[in-house]
Amino acid sequence: MDNRAIGIFDSGVGGLTVAKELIRCLPNEDIVYFGDTARVPYGTKSKQTIIRFSVENVLLLLRYNVKVIVVACNTSSSVALTKLRENFKVPIMDVISPGVSDAVSATGNNRIGIIGTSATVKSKAYQRQILKRLPCARVFSRGCPLFVPLVEEGWLTGRITSEIIGYHLMDLKKNRIDTLILGCTHYPLLRSGISKFMGKEVRLIDSAVSTARSVKRFLHEGGLTSGRPSAGRLSFLVSDEPAQFKSIGGKFLGRGLIKVRKASYGV
Amino acid sequence: MDNRAIGIFDSGVGGLTVAKELIRCLPNEDIVYFGDTARVPYGTKSKQTIIRFSVENVLLLLRYNVKVIVVACNTSSSVALTKLRENFKVPIMDVISPGVSDAVSATGNNRIGIIGTSATVKSKAYQRQILKRLPCARVFSRGCPLFVPLVEEGWLTGRITSEIIGYHLMDLKKNRIDTLILGCTHYPLLRSGISKFMGKEVRLIDSAVSTARSVKRFLHEGGLTSGRPSAGRLSFLVSDEPAQFKSIGGKFLGRGLIKVRKASYGV
Repeated sequence: MDNRAIGIFDSGVGGLTVAKELIRCLPNEDIVYFGDTARVPYGTKSKQTIIRFSVENVLLLLRYNVKVIVVACNTSSSVALTKLRENFKVPIMDVISPGVSDAVSATGNNRIGIIGTSATVKSKAYQRQILKRLPCARVFSRGCPLFVPLVEEGWLTGRITSEIIGYHLMDLKKNRIDTLILGCTHYPLLRSGISKFMGKEVRLIDSAVSTARSVKRFLHEGGLTSGRPSAGRLSFLVSDEPAQFKSIGGKFLGRGLIKVRKASYGV
Repeated sequence: MDNRAIGIFDSGVGGLTVAKELIRCLPNEDIVYFGDTARVPYGTKSKQTIIRFSVENVLLLLRYNVKVIVVACNTSSSVALTKLRENFKVPIMDVISPGVSDAVSATGNNRIGIIGTSATVKSKAYQRQILKRLPCARVFSRGCPLFVPLVEEGWLTGRITSEIIGYHLMDLKKNRIDTLILGCTHYPLLRSGISKFMGKEVRLIDSAVSTARSVKRFLHEGGLTSGRPSAGRLSFLVSDEPAQFKSIGGKFLGRGLIKVRKASYGV
């Protein structure tokens, strides 16, 4: 039994899709979420910079006495995870490996697609993990850099959005994948358009759902779940002013965001 | 006569459109350009954060002994200029007022449009300055948050780009403006699509061109031009790793970027 909070960080609001699933799976846990909204996005930046930012985010969350840290950002999980685990003792979980597990279980024809930011795709983190688990797999990946701005501007449906989705996913469709990993926390919000374009026979893997299940399993197995019978407390911290995060965060979290505070790195 | 360099900063690569025009107008001047590529973009962030970043950028450029600083970022010019001028003795020039001067001279029907990032539009900086110079003007402004990602991904033409341009500019067209300020350093790269949609009768004001002319005038008037007969040296500094900046910067600068170095804030 461990009543300390679960720490989560992301480059911005996207990780709230992971927080949403965690709250659903583990309603009695306290959660401290940090969104690095002053420096968002990470997906277009270099490996070195993403690692530096990720280390600072972990240091910040450790000030809140967390029992585990979830890197709820695919970009950061792809390029910084090894470095974080080398440098910190707290258990650090990522959003890549749970999605990989679910994709490997779901595929029938062993043809798996991945969509994500440029940095995520370039890192080949998904590809490496899939091939380790399923060496006969054919993995096809595609960066979709316009999806994040589309989601952040609230263009979740409509003709232009459908065309941009079609443009980015055309090759994956030709590759006859039967499983597609939504390898960026923003993409679940485009799920209906993606699903419509890819067709019902393609199974979409939402990393947020996979990750929440994996965190739940980890806490149970380690006897680390909260002993509290009541609902956990939710704290939201950001590095920019809270207004923008508050205004669009609700769409990602699936509920209103009441208290959002600005946190400083102290660096 | 003053052989010190001109300092320029922007949130990323966009300000290179300003650097390009400066090099054209003032070929003998040394130029030190800083792009805050680790924290780009500014246009979606809060006033407080943009001011903090801008102050750090000026401090960085001052280490290079510059004679004037050009804030080659519309967002930063809109929200941070007053604060920068209050805090530093070096002359600080912006990209807003030169564009406003040119727009006020160009308009015939006194109906002026402005497009820019969310932060620029929200600041109403353009609007205030236009109305000060031309109180009878009708000013119409529109945030175009998808334009920057379009340009950075290299989608400068094509059907989807045309549709996104049309979607954002439709209202301005209905407002019967005869002059449109491209109030973001990225937008000149979408110039042909914007011009095609708005029609030939609408005059487009490129802030980069207006700003370079204004800097030239300022240096001449103050006797601050370089006395060197040869071409000036160009230095490019960035806060993220240089690779990405190098690869897309050429499109903005109109020539290859040879030396790009990583600079640290020292904070």
